Amino acid sequence: MCELLALNFGMETSLQITFRGFQKRGSCNPDGWGLAYYPDESAIIIKEPITSTQSKLATFVSKYSEIRGKIFIGHVRKASVGNKGCFKNTHPFTRELDGKQFVFAHNGTLRNHDSLSSQYFTPIGDTDSEHSFCHLLSEYKDKIGSIQKREHFDCIHSILKAINERGNFNCIFSNGEYLFCYHDRDKYKGLDFVERIAPFGHVELVDDDWKVNLDEEKDTNQHGYVIATKPLTKEVWKSFESGELIVLRNGLMVYSSHRTSLEMRILQTIRNHPTKIEIQELVSKLKRPFDVICRQVQVLHHHDLIRQDSRDQVSADHKNASFFTNSGMNGIISCWVGKRDINN
Amino acid sequence: MCELLALNFGMETSLQITFRGFQKRGSCNPDGWGLAYYPDESAIIIKEPITSTQSKLATFVSKYSEIRGKIFIGHVRKASVGNKGCFKNTHPFTRELDGKQFVFAHNGTLRNHDSLSSQYFTPIGDTDSEHSFCHLLSEYKDKIGSIQKREHFDCIHSILKAINERGNFNCIFSNGEYLFCYHDRDKYKGLDFVERIAPFGHVELVDDDWKVNLDEEKDTNQHGYVIATKPLTKEVWKSFESGELIVLRNGLMVYSSHRTSLEMRILQTIRNHPTKIEIQELVSKLKRPFDVICRQVQVLHHHDLIRQDSRDQVSADHKNASFFTNSGMNGIISCWVGKRDINN
Repeated sequence: MCELLALNFGMETSLQITFRGFQKRGSCNPDGWGLAYYPDESAIIIKEPITSTQSKLATFVSKYSEIRGKIFIGHVRKASVGNKGCFKNTHPFTRELDGKQFVFAHNGTLRNHDSLSSQYFTPIGDTDSEHSFCHLLSEYKDKIGSIQKREHFDCIHSILKAINERGNFNCIFSNGEYLFCYHDRDKYKGLDFVERIAPFGHVELVDDDWKVNLDEEKDTNQHGYVIATKPLTKEVWKSFESGELIVLRNGLMVYSSHRTSLEMRILQTIRNHPTKIEIQELVSKLKRPFDVICRQVQVLHHHDLIRQDSRDQVSADHKNASFFTNSGMNGIISCWVGKRDINN
Repeated sequence: MCELLALNFGMETSLQITFRGFQKRGSCNPDGWGLAYYPDESAIIIKEPITSTQSKLATFVSKYSEIRGKIFIGHVRKASVGNKGCFKNTHPFTRELDGKQFVFAHNGTLRNHDSLSSQYFTPIGDTDSEHSFCHLLSEYKDKIGSIQKREHFDCIHSILKAINERGNFNCIFSNGEYLFCYHDRDKYKGLDFVERIAPFGHVELVDDDWKVNLDEEKDTNQHGYVIATKPLTKEVWKSFESGELIVLRNGLMVYSSHRTSLEMRILQTIRNHPTKIEIQELVSKLKRPFDVICRQVQVLHHHDLIRQDSRDQVSADHKNASFFTNSGMNGIISCWVGKRDINN
């Protein structure tokens, strides 16, 4: 009943988003549209419970140049559960937990959502979506608190799978640091992603529901992902697996319940290598083209997850450039790629 | 350091608000502007950490006709505590408590705000204001829960007075039902209010900080209050007393720590009268002009707080129209005007 969109980048970016409001499908107008983004640790949410094509605010947003951040969540809604045309039922929803502002959007329909327990949060509106968000956050508070280890992602995945038992459930949420994207176990509606690595020119992502214009990006350290219910470009998008949770941070895919991203395989390989490792050795171990590996290495380097050996006589993008993980980041690296295998 | 504005009406109204951004005071530009309103039980918050005169969003808001509700809270900020130019430090702030969306704005500066305890909420930003909001809500949750009796307002007043011990503290907040307005004990900056009762033509409320255009209101049941740091019209505004809390609901002043509003005096008089009471008798008891009493009676009648005797042969605005309180509203009436004096 709803369409989801999310973007996460390593560096702040600016976008213009046009909510096209199913405008090509005459009989199926949406009952709301919403956009959330994080200009800093706090989120800005702009939403309305009316067809975006009738909304002056949506028109304004589509031209507004100050929508900047690293995390964006978009939603268009066709009401299934909950009254139509209410602000309180319009996605994305937000709550503060332990000083982090969480934002949540969902598509699908859940059965018996009233019975979803929620100790710390109470829905303001009537939707199954907001109920599931309150439940998710209460579980999150009890079972996780702050993300310190890889098992915390597994735990979030379990909470989401349990909600999914009640019906169709795709959801995207963020705490301002991580972007969590979960795909329904029955692949309801679909959820796809594409990786975007700079340099790229002006990008237009477009389908019946929205058009997203990403500014031209020349900084080669820029890197990120776009997630959407359906592919928005003619490139090859990858589909989420049934019941898959993907977690992004700073434009890196740091967790998936079903796959290991190339950037995490590189990070893991560098971390598990007993000494520093050269890019050409990564290429040979991971069996991917030099260009592909090298660009990912630059991104990891940019985020200070890895350090180049100061004795290197070559630049960081040379095949003989050698790297080791930044020991100051050991905690977060273990959180993403698991503990070091001491037998390795 | 900041300027506050709030409006509460008995019926939904539409307004256009122009944040003028201290534009007449060259040396004192604000570091943020914000507007919150309740289109339903949920609040919409529009804010930016930049000078409103430089903001395209503020310009859009000033012309947008869809800003409708019964409760509005506005704020312009000159940073005192907390970094400048951050969304996370821009008022109004929001949290959900027991399924109600609270919105809060403050002016003044508090000392040692980090030591304000807050069990259930944690600030996202750095301001004394958001700290005091988190503290207030935690106390509210522990001591009040939901407002059931007049002592709950007294309790909120005590919480606010205790915060005020730490410095200058004017604040305006709402749970979507009540609008709470508290004035600093040392009368810092000032806080004034004016009553507005229909019919009124197009109203322009204006000073250096903002211009508010209220649509023409012909429905004689419309009634409300405007609260601002400084009077916005040439009418006679009333000043808050030092340390006064005023609470509004549906455009009625249902509580004040320092005064009893005419509407509550009328309601109390009708409630305490052993039988039904005519408007002319209210006029004689309360010693106010017939027109003034009659209009307030119509408003109370509109909100179903009082009922006209069905045997009356006259219309509800006739001097012989007779009223009694609606027994179905006894709970809320006692909450506002205290328990019935059985000796009366």
